[in-house]
Amino acid sequence: MSLSVRELLEEIAFNTSLEEGAEGVRAILRSVLRSQPISVNLLACSVGIAVPVVSAVRRELEKRKLLERRGGAVLTDKGVDALNELGIKNLCSHRYDVTQSLPDPMQKLIELFKKKTFDRPEPDRTIDQSHTTPETSIRRVFYMYEHGSIEGRDILLLGDDDLTSIAIVLFADYFGIDIGSITVLDIDRRILNFIEKKCTDYQFKLNSVAHDFREDLPGSNFNSFDVFCSDPPYTVDGVKLFALRGAQALKNEPGKTAYISFPSRPSDDISSIFGALSSLGLAPQEMIPGFNRYLGAQIHAGASTMLRCNTGLDTRTEISLDLSNIYTNQRRNVN
Amino acid sequence: MSLSVRELLEEIAFNTSLEEGAEGVRAILRSVLRSQPISVNLLACSVGIAVPVVSAVRRELEKRKLLERRGGAVLTDKGVDALNELGIKNLCSHRYDVTQSLPDPMQKLIELFKKKTFDRPEPDRTIDQSHTTPETSIRRVFYMYEHGSIEGRDILLLGDDDLTSIAIVLFADYFGIDIGSITVLDIDRRILNFIEKKCTDYQFKLNSVAHDFREDLPGSNFNSFDVFCSDPPYTVDGVKLFALRGAQALKNEPGKTAYISFPSRPSDDISSIFGALSSLGLAPQEMIPGFNRYLGAQIHAGASTMLRCNTGLDTRTEISLDLSNIYTNQRRNVN
Repeated sequence: MSLSVRELLEEIAFNTSLEEGAEGVRAILRSVLRSQPISVNLLACSVGIAVPVVSAVRRELEKRKLLERRGGAVLTDKGVDALNELGIKNLCSHRYDVTQSLPDPMQKLIELFKKKTFDRPEPDRTIDQSHTTPETSIRRVFYMYEHGSIEGRDILLLGDDDLTSIAIVLFADYFGIDIGSITVLDIDRRILNFIEKKCTDYQFKLNSVAHDFREDLPGSNFNSFDVFCSDPPYTVDGVKLFALRGAQALKNEPGKTAYISFPSRPSDDISSIFGALSSLGLAPQEMIPGFNRYLGAQIHAGASTMLRCNTGLDTRTEISLDLSNIYTNQRRNVN
Repeated sequence: MSLSVRELLEEIAFNTSLEEGAEGVRAILRSVLRSQPISVNLLACSVGIAVPVVSAVRRELEKRKLLERRGGAVLTDKGVDALNELGIKNLCSHRYDVTQSLPDPMQKLIELFKKKTFDRPEPDRTIDQSHTTPETSIRRVFYMYEHGSIEGRDILLLGDDDLTSIAIVLFADYFGIDIGSITVLDIDRRILNFIEKKCTDYQFKLNSVAHDFREDLPGSNFNSFDVFCSDPPYTVDGVKLFALRGAQALKNEPGKTAYISFPSRPSDDISSIFGALSSLGLAPQEMIPGFNRYLGAQIHAGASTMLRCNTGLDTRTEISLDLSNIYTNQRRNVN
């Protein structure tokens, strides 16, 4: 049944020549659910698609009785059902808004996260581990939710010493949200064991696999995910390598989403990273310096940037890399 | 005398192997001025440079008696004098902070901008003109000021139907800030005439030149500016062309800054734009969707993204472009 909704979205995207594909239609419907009744202008703004294109999609959605107009676009019962089949129910109606302090449920989730993770493994600095604050972990998930990356999603964590997987599980459990699946790949078995142990009480599909990203992804992880999230090693090659693996893991279609965190670096390094992201077809949508905060003393002043990217129609997953060079300490030894 | 401060900053950057160059040292000193006394951690965070590197620069600045420690880094009289020679006096002590509403002086400047520009030329849609709201124009300048791009700066506006030059003049005049110079290049003489007329009452060095960016920059504009600001035509080639001209116009050294506004586009277009920026050595620092708001009906829902980039050590100013294709209407005719 969910497949047929999926096919419907694809057909609508095809009929309206929507470059953002089925994901673009999904984003439009989800935005209506969260803000109805909504004008076509606000709708276009919320999904980042030009007004005439959103108008065309809206007409198609009206023709198929998923939307109607009542002081702006609103969902029909059929539209609500279609979204429900995708796992989208607006069970968390709070909006991620930097101008506001975090809403009350997030504060509760931060406390819960602290309790769940107080006995987490110590960071292994030799592989550039460094823990985000509990507040950052929950805010990250809230931000991902805002951008449609939690409900019904197959989510990949590329390295997870931040325990973002646990934050996702707590968030989804709190609001009663259906996730597709959560997969954690990490080189550090302590992390995987800890996450597995802490998530046994929850009814989510969690896969955890020990993996060194210098090796090819396990075969079943290619072309498989809607979302990946990574806070990679600090080196330029480390960021590029994890982005490459993430791009390979995302489903080959437009509108799949990457969340990549990285610290401030000299501009030539940043240029090089963005050149690689462009080669991988990961298109930046938002870049927030200081989004991530870390515990303990840090060479990067305890803060890093959050970059959100979307895939397009062009999928390219080749870049040149120096695999001997992905961790800060290796780099120091080499120099 | 200002030259010697400049040389001093370069020497300090050289002695500390600071990849961010003299601009990095300037940014550190300016951050101390605005937040003293300030810890090395907050300082590192504010300038986006790693803690050990900022520590090394601070030691060098202490050795040269520009900084000292009193509950954190503070400027000596000599340090204050050095900054003054660069035009940096913290005359606007307000901080750009998205979590706060605009401070009172900005509200006054918005009203002043409205009065000054009520009789501005109508937008010429054939060349993708579209006016930002007065609030956006002033907020843009405030944002540039926050990032060190106003005081003592040689500023280039690449196209200025938004009248950002007038907003800069009003802002600088209000706070008594010294600007190096403002240069406006625009294909539309109406815009240049209007800006010249409105700025005659102010004591700033304003150059305005009619120019079609499909042609090479006028020779005197190469390698000449600290900052460029552009809200280019909406096409991919339009954005790339204006970014190319901006990169050519910036001084060939690290830490020069670009402010580029562009609307939401399909991901493949965005990837292509970021690939070009990487080729031009413009490294993204922050990307804010919805930063710019526009007057009147818009195909892009009246909003666009602000992207702030810095140059690095690598300066490259070649990309491939289709110059027949830079305005939306041309593109439509061609298709």
